[in-house]
Amino acid sequence: MESEKPVLDDFGILSGISETIVTTTRTTSEGSLPNAAPIGIIRKDNKVLVRLFKGSQTYDNVFKGNFLVANVVNDPLIFVRSTFSDLDHSEFDVVSAGGREFPVLKDALSWVAFECTSTKVTSEALVAELDPIFARLNRCVVSAPNRGFNAVLEATVHATRYLLTGDDEYLKLIQMYARLAVKCGDERDKLAMEMLYDLLEL
Amino acid sequence: MESEKPVLDDFGILSGISETIVTTTRTTSEGSLPNAAPIGIIRKDNKVLVRLFKGSQTYDNVFKGNFLVANVVNDPLIFVRSTFSDLDHSEFDVVSAGGREFPVLKDALSWVAFECTSTKVTSEALVAELDPIFARLNRCVVSAPNRGFNAVLEATVHATRYLLTGDDEYLKLIQMYARLAVKCGDERDKLAMEMLYDLLEL
Repeated sequence: MESEKPVLDDFGILSGISETIVTTTRTTSEGSLPNAAPIGIIRKDNKVLVRLFKGSQTYDNVFKGNFLVANVVNDPLIFVRSTFSDLDHSEFDVVSAGGREFPVLKDALSWVAFECTSTKVTSEALVAELDPIFARLNRCVVSAPNRGFNAVLEATVHATRYLLTGDDEYLKLIQMYARLAVKCGDERDKLAMEMLYDLLEL
Repeated sequence: MESEKPVLDDFGILSGISETIVTTTRTTSEGSLPNAAPIGIIRKDNKVLVRLFKGSQTYDNVFKGNFLVANVVNDPLIFVRSTFSDLDHSEFDVVSAGGREFPVLKDALSWVAFECTSTKVTSEALVAELDPIFARLNRCVVSAPNRGFNAVLEATVHATRYLLTGDDEYLKLIQMYARLAVKCGDERDKLAMEMLYDLLEL
C-alpha cells in the first residue's frame, strides 16, 4: 500500500482504455455487499475517467459511493464470469485504508482505488473523473501477448451486444474469436470460451 | 542470465501460442547479421514448438543454425515494423553465453534463447522442438489488457494475409481493428496502426 498518491504506470493503468474488473460496494440493511464488473478505465494525458451505464450495479454503487477499485486481472474466466454473473464473496478481499473499507479481487495482479469526482450524469450514463487514492501491486507477471486470451475479451464484449440486440454480426465475431481461443489460447482461455458459449446457449 | 535451464513461466512464454519477436542470425561472408520477425511460440504441456514457413529469413536462419531467441515485447510498433521490414541494427544487442553469440532485442521485456531439436521439414515449412538454454528478464511491467494493442496484433496478422490474397474480408477486419486501436489504444497503438495503413497503402 502506498501512502502517497499512486503512480498509475506502476499499477498497470496505462494510457488508452485499460480493461479492468471494477469492484464496488453496495450498502444494504444487511451490511456491505461487494460487486465486480468488467469496466474500461480511460486514461488520456493525466486525466482518468470512467463511463458507467445506467441500470448496472456498478453505476448505482458509484453514484452513491463515489468510489471504485480498478483491478488488473489476467484470468480470462474472471472477465467472462463477472460480465454475466456475480463473483463469489470468497473471491474478494476487504481492504481497510484511510478510514475506508473497500473490496478488491484476491486474484488481481494489482489494483488502484479511485475517488470519483466531477461526476456528470446524463439520461443514459455517468462520467466521473477518477482520482487515485490507494494502490497495491500483488505480483508482476511477464507474459507474451496471447491472441487466445485477447479473443476471449473480444468475444465477451460482443456477447453482451449479441444478448442486447440478437444481431447475427455479433454471433459471427464471437465464433471467429472462439476459433482463435481454441487455436492460440491456453486451457483457461478455452474454458472461458466454453463458458461464454454455455451462457449464450450456443 | 540463468545458468540452469530456464523456467519458461518466469520469462513470459506461457501455455498456448505466445506472440513473440524471434531473433536469429544469418552468417554471411561479411559477418553475422541479426534478423527479427514476429513468430508464435507454441507451448503445450511441456513441449515447446515453432513452425516456420519456407521462404522467410527466419526459416533459413533456423534451418542452418538450429537456434532462435523468442523476445517478449509490448511495443506495438515493433510488431508492425518487424512484420514488414528489417529492424535497425541498433535495436539489437548481442549476447555471449555458453560459447555462442546471438542477437536479442534491446527493448524486450524478457527473452528466451532456444536450441532447435527434432526439426521436421516439409515442402512448406519446418517444425522444430525448442529446448530453452538461456533466458533473461529485463523488466516486468504490469499492465491491464488493452483492446487497442490487441487490435494492432490482429490487424498485423490480417495485413499479411491481405497482402498475400487481396481478399476484402481481411481488409474489413483490418478496418474494424483500426477503429478499435483509435478508440482503446494509446499513442503507440495509434501510430502502429497508421504505419500499417501506410504500408498497405490504404
